[in-house]
Amino acid sequence: MMKRRYLLKAAAAGSLATAIATPAIAQSSPKISWRLTSGFPKTLDTIYGAAEEFTRIVSDATDGNFQIQAFAAGEIVPMPEAADTVAAGTVEMAHTASYYYWGKNAAYALGTAIPFGLNARGMNAWYYHGGGIDLMNEFYHTQGLHVFPGGNTGVQMGGWWRKEIKSLEDLQGVKMRIGGMGGKVMEALGVVPQQIPGGEIYPALERGAIDAAEWVGPYDDEKLGLNKVASYYYYPGFWEGGPTLNFMINLAKWNELPKSYQAIIATAAATANQSMLAKYDAKNPGALKSLIAGGAQLRPFPEDMMSKAFEVSNALYAKLSAENPDFKKIYDNQVAFRNQANMWNQVAELSFDVFMIRNRPKG
Amino acid sequence: MMKRRYLLKAAAAGSLATAIATPAIAQSSPKISWRLTSGFPKTLDTIYGAAEEFTRIVSDATDGNFQIQAFAAGEIVPMPEAADTVAAGTVEMAHTASYYYWGKNAAYALGTAIPFGLNARGMNAWYYHGGGIDLMNEFYHTQGLHVFPGGNTGVQMGGWWRKEIKSLEDLQGVKMRIGGMGGKVMEALGVVPQQIPGGEIYPALERGAIDAAEWVGPYDDEKLGLNKVASYYYYPGFWEGGPTLNFMINLAKWNELPKSYQAIIATAAATANQSMLAKYDAKNPGALKSLIAGGAQLRPFPEDMMSKAFEVSNALYAKLSAENPDFKKIYDNQVAFRNQANMWNQVAELSFDVFMIRNRPKG
Repeated sequence: MMKRRYLLKAAAAGSLATAIATPAIAQSSPKISWRLTSGFPKTLDTIYGAAEEFTRIVSDATDGNFQIQAFAAGEIVPMPEAADTVAAGTVEMAHTASYYYWGKNAAYALGTAIPFGLNARGMNAWYYHGGGIDLMNEFYHTQGLHVFPGGNTGVQMGGWWRKEIKSLEDLQGVKMRIGGMGGKVMEALGVVPQQIPGGEIYPALERGAIDAAEWVGPYDDEKLGLNKVASYYYYPGFWEGGPTLNFMINLAKWNELPKSYQAIIATAAATANQSMLAKYDAKNPGALKSLIAGGAQLRPFPEDMMSKAFEVSNALYAKLSAENPDFKKIYDNQVAFRNQANMWNQVAELSFDVFMIRNRPKG
Repeated sequence: MMKRRYLLKAAAAGSLATAIATPAIAQSSPKISWRLTSGFPKTLDTIYGAAEEFTRIVSDATDGNFQIQAFAAGEIVPMPEAADTVAAGTVEMAHTASYYYWGKNAAYALGTAIPFGLNARGMNAWYYHGGGIDLMNEFYHTQGLHVFPGGNTGVQMGGWWRKEIKSLEDLQGVKMRIGGMGGKVMEALGVVPQQIPGGEIYPALERGAIDAAEWVGPYDDEKLGLNKVASYYYYPGFWEGGPTLNFMINLAKWNELPKSYQAIIATAAATANQSMLAKYDAKNPGALKSLIAGGAQLRPFPEDMMSKAFEVSNALYAKLSAENPDFKKIYDNQVAFRNQANMWNQVAELSFDVFMIRNRPKG
């Protein structure tokens, strides 16, 4: 139906073209209305906000001709069905995390984050100038989707724990709210992973149904009040070093868009991608300060646990690579990029950051 | 003249409005041609490339109606005159580094980088979600400019040195190519700063007219071949922790633009800002590897030198703050933001990066 409307308008405008001598304009600015289903609730203003920023830019840049209405998870589509609904064309696009769909195909995980993957700057470098967008879309196109990076949280926290973890031993039998590949890795370390929606984490932790829960980082965690039901706040969330959200678009709908609208979607998505990380970086410091003032005990994960998790993750990637050529092709590219990036990271970036952190009290 | 053309077109389109029922389109998509003078040569494909990406997005998003032609430094305006030329309206916009103009007013420096300032993620957080864009534009508007962040190099390197620097002592009398506030700080440490254009660094270092020179980082430095005339490659370039390039627009021309074109400029600038950093992050690792293979000796600046430079920088900021209320207002805001950001940086980000760097050989 949208297609027909667009063609009718283009034809009408075409007949007036010689009179106003700007035929391209009316043809290329059709009125289009899309729906976007977010994988997140509105309370996550950082992540949900990236979808809102995206739709606002598209509207402003097209003088309101291209309207994309955003809906929170569950309003029009239940969260787990977003990718399928978009692929089917029922809803034109989604803003979600590709790794939620790694059960369909493990390659989806590489579009968001894998344990011990790239950090936020690394993901952007890989996506925009390391061939990542094309490589991911080669895969996504087989799924009926065209996808853009759509936000980043930065390194997440390792969650809230009711008791202290001093070594790998202490993980045995711990019931933790953690999903995806992170959950798989933690399971191999002795943890019992639990799938619990965000809104139910607090009561589950409070009544001791679970012993630990990971959510995002200081700003989002503070809103759930998790510091009130678990004292130990661990870092880093090694399963999400630079998780990238994704704008998923139905492939046929994408191909139908005028070139100018495609350009606007690409630039609006890139803007939202950068803005979400900037928002987390602006909000997390104040939230961390207030969580610590409220009694949160910061703890780094023990070295033996980190090392074992890294080993287990690499074994998982070897297994997935052997089973799944889609995963292997993208993983090999991404991990080579990561290793080279970290060689450079240790030079100027790390030394500058460490100096600034050490000298903060003098600044 | 552009104004007249725009009004005539809008009027013509308006008379047809009821016929095609899309009056806003023709009015809001006038044909506009601007010129952009870059502060950089085309050989710096990373930085110059950000201006090209920006102009391409603006053209694509407007179906070619808004054309901005980019010119390399010196082609239409000599590099040092870019800001004045744009403020006067002779050229509509520039892509340059605001800190080149700190001699006019020290507040310009805060738009790009000050020694021991924010890193790249910090600059983005401050600009986009810490009030930085509005605060800077409050100042830039007094200069006849409207400005957007327009790219970042990440932490730069500390340059190429012909002899090793083991302590502050070794800096005395060293003739170094370094400009801006970084040069001012180095001067206080005993260095003799020299102003030399990029193209003349190689011969000056080769014949010993200077003892050291800073340029950018591995990717750009390799193109100048500086490793062939100085062996020691120092880090970090503490005078440029997250230098932000800037798109400067004549304020009156900015205010005349239709809202949709303003939205497109803002999103294209943000996209170019992110893309330039991603390009550096993608290109620097390979270049560093090849420089090391070519004999470059990596060295961290000595601790006593870093500490003294930090002390000298803080004294300079105290002096500038006492003299210049524009500087003080922005500096106080930026430095408070930096200190809070670094409290958070040391938790999840630093621990994740350090783990990944240490375990790189096992990955």
